[in-house]
Amino acid sequence: MRDDSNLPASPDFIDHPLGPPIAAVSPSATGLRIDWADGVTMDASRFWLRENEVAADIVDPETRERVLRIADVPDNLAIAGAEIEPEGAVRVIWEPDHRQSRFHPGWLRHTAEGGWRPQAGLPARESWTAARMPELPTFDGPGVLDDDAALKGWLGALYRYGIARLVDVPLADGTVERVARRIGTIRASNFGFLFTVESKPDPDSTAYTGAALEGHTDLASREVQPGIQMLHCQENTSEGGASTMVDGFAVAEAIRAEDPEAFGSLVRDRWLFSNRHPETDFRWSGPLVETDIAGNIVEIRNTGFLRANPDMESARVEIAYKAVRLFAERAAENRFTCRSRFRAGDLVAFDNRRILHGRDSFDPRTGSRRLQGCYLETDELLSRLRVLNRP
Amino acid sequence: MRDDSNLPASPDFIDHPLGPPIAAVSPSATGLRIDWADGVTMDASRFWLRENEVAADIVDPETRERVLRIADVPDNLAIAGAEIEPEGAVRVIWEPDHRQSRFHPGWLRHTAEGGWRPQAGLPARESWTAARMPELPTFDGPGVLDDDAALKGWLGALYRYGIARLVDVPLADGTVERVARRIGTIRASNFGFLFTVESKPDPDSTAYTGAALEGHTDLASREVQPGIQMLHCQENTSEGGASTMVDGFAVAEAIRAEDPEAFGSLVRDRWLFSNRHPETDFRWSGPLVETDIAGNIVEIRNTGFLRANPDMESARVEIAYKAVRLFAERAAENRFTCRSRFRAGDLVAFDNRRILHGRDSFDPRTGSRRLQGCYLETDELLSRLRVLNRP
Repeated sequence: MRDDSNLPASPDFIDHPLGPPIAAVSPSATGLRIDWADGVTMDASRFWLRENEVAADIVDPETRERVLRIADVPDNLAIAGAEIEPEGAVRVIWEPDHRQSRFHPGWLRHTAEGGWRPQAGLPARESWTAARMPELPTFDGPGVLDDDAALKGWLGALYRYGIARLVDVPLADGTVERVARRIGTIRASNFGFLFTVESKPDPDSTAYTGAALEGHTDLASREVQPGIQMLHCQENTSEGGASTMVDGFAVAEAIRAEDPEAFGSLVRDRWLFSNRHPETDFRWSGPLVETDIAGNIVEIRNTGFLRANPDMESARVEIAYKAVRLFAERAAENRFTCRSRFRAGDLVAFDNRRILHGRDSFDPRTGSRRLQGCYLETDELLSRLRVLNRP
Repeated sequence: MRDDSNLPASPDFIDHPLGPPIAAVSPSATGLRIDWADGVTMDASRFWLRENEVAADIVDPETRERVLRIADVPDNLAIAGAEIEPEGAVRVIWEPDHRQSRFHPGWLRHTAEGGWRPQAGLPARESWTAARMPELPTFDGPGVLDDDAALKGWLGALYRYGIARLVDVPLADGTVERVARRIGTIRASNFGFLFTVESKPDPDSTAYTGAALEGHTDLASREVQPGIQMLHCQENTSEGGASTMVDGFAVAEAIRAEDPEAFGSLVRDRWLFSNRHPETDFRWSGPLVETDIAGNIVEIRNTGFLRANPDMESARVEIAYKAVRLFAERAAENRFTCRSRFRAGDLVAFDNRRILHGRDSFDPRTGSRRLQGCYLETDELLSRLRVLNRP
């Protein structure tokens, strides 16, 4: 084993493995070329190296935040010399100010390998149909509450499939908050910090009746739809009311293959979603399916019961309604639908920007059906997964 | 006055003025052409009309949500006839099912005029410099707490200039929450539901020391930076520590005029922002300046002390650092900077995705400086403004 007691801290304060040895460092006009013994190389920018030294006047080791102002770095900053120390750290001598800075070799390697990227270390996302995934991925609730390895397993599945269930979760009120806090901060909304889905007097949403709910994402009228939704079943003795869960990414992919014109409308034509409430007036306009620059499907925005106006030229409206209708028809098909009945103690977490959740109707007179729920932002999940993945 | 007692409800449940009379309605293959007496026209889609009738089986007047599934509407839906009722409502007779639906004329007019658009009725945003706006727009705190007209004035300025101040706000702990709830739901973060900015032991942010803070947006490492930030000064007897507020949109516009290549980098080249904390690992990659499809500047993402990696081809890094340095230099200039000292009872609210906030250093040994703060999403502000604007 190499002795790393004399190595500088990494500016991300993560204990990166040292990695293969660095074979050579060579200053260039704009930074430092680094060559590892196994052939990996990196061109490190002079400004980037300068602003990432862990030192009280650059990156404060106490607050872990940068205190150097980038505008205060001289424009003629240059690397006069560089060397590999016996323990593996890289030492840089600067011009014009003769400062010396040292960098952790594991952090340099981590950077060269792209370990800093938002997606680094996360599982690949996999789309699914009911044929491929007839049952929701299921994990032990008490384990997830107590054990980080169990938590990591559950959250990995949640990210990969967009949905994962816990069973045997304690029934006490507020337990959904305990589970959510295993991930991070809860996102409150106009429906509250926690919300309770049950048949209520004076309902301000169809969710609070016994009626069927078509598969949907929640809060499409918000700029950012909630990323993660949790529903914790405390009681379910009513007849009916099975839950439906559909991978919206799989539905969108199927339409891309079946009807490219309809798919083109889903990604291009924008709809105004609007809530209608005495106290709030949230509105957002966006396409039903969002793709990234590479054409990957990255988000579904489809609260059908909040769709208010086509936000497009009138010549597009007929084709856009055709596309919305096709999407709704496909999303209701059994081949896409994972249908299951909530049992007391079940807790389902899902990506609300991907999964269409719905339910069959139930008769509130036959018993009680009570779900307690909450939302979190997507990046709370990603943050927790990254922390659980740290070496 | 016209008697509107026999008019149907609007599907947005807002009491729209009736507007000018409708002169003619004429069915077409895809919907209904509506002509108003003053020359305004609208081609209303058949599907859109069908799904916007207020009726228990279409838009439920109790929950105000749609219960009709769009996929259940027949593809051969057509308008067989239409008429203008004496009170002004439009009546439509449908095929193939002979249903009749009635629509409120004020709602149709509102739609024709684009009143449903997210920006409708909101003030225009105006960028500013310190020369144009040497003092923050200032309003009476107790008035805003008690009176909706005062609230509307303050929030209008907050939206227009991205910043507006209250004075004489009560000093009690948690008052910032009372003010925030006049708008809507607070967005909690890893810094808490409310956060307190003061010099603390074991600080996990430069904010919690006496050091100067370069102008910045908060939480650039999050997918969505908090939209509105509020800071309520409860005490300020320290020497130094003046606040700096800069309109980031004005800085970006100045760079667009001065150095198009640097501006091009600011909107194109992405940076990875990353927080560095034992318990969280938030990362987001984006450009410093975001523009919409028309080239308007719509967001600044610039927490300099969380900037971690250039997320671009290496050939872009030199120009990208040049652009970041230029932005930082310009943003620090007096011509852009509205500098003021917090007094106890001041509460400043600002658009955290637009305004760069910072402070001069202060000496915690000379007195106490205590700000209590919180965040809200941008669409909470927009929702409240729309509700306050309702007829």
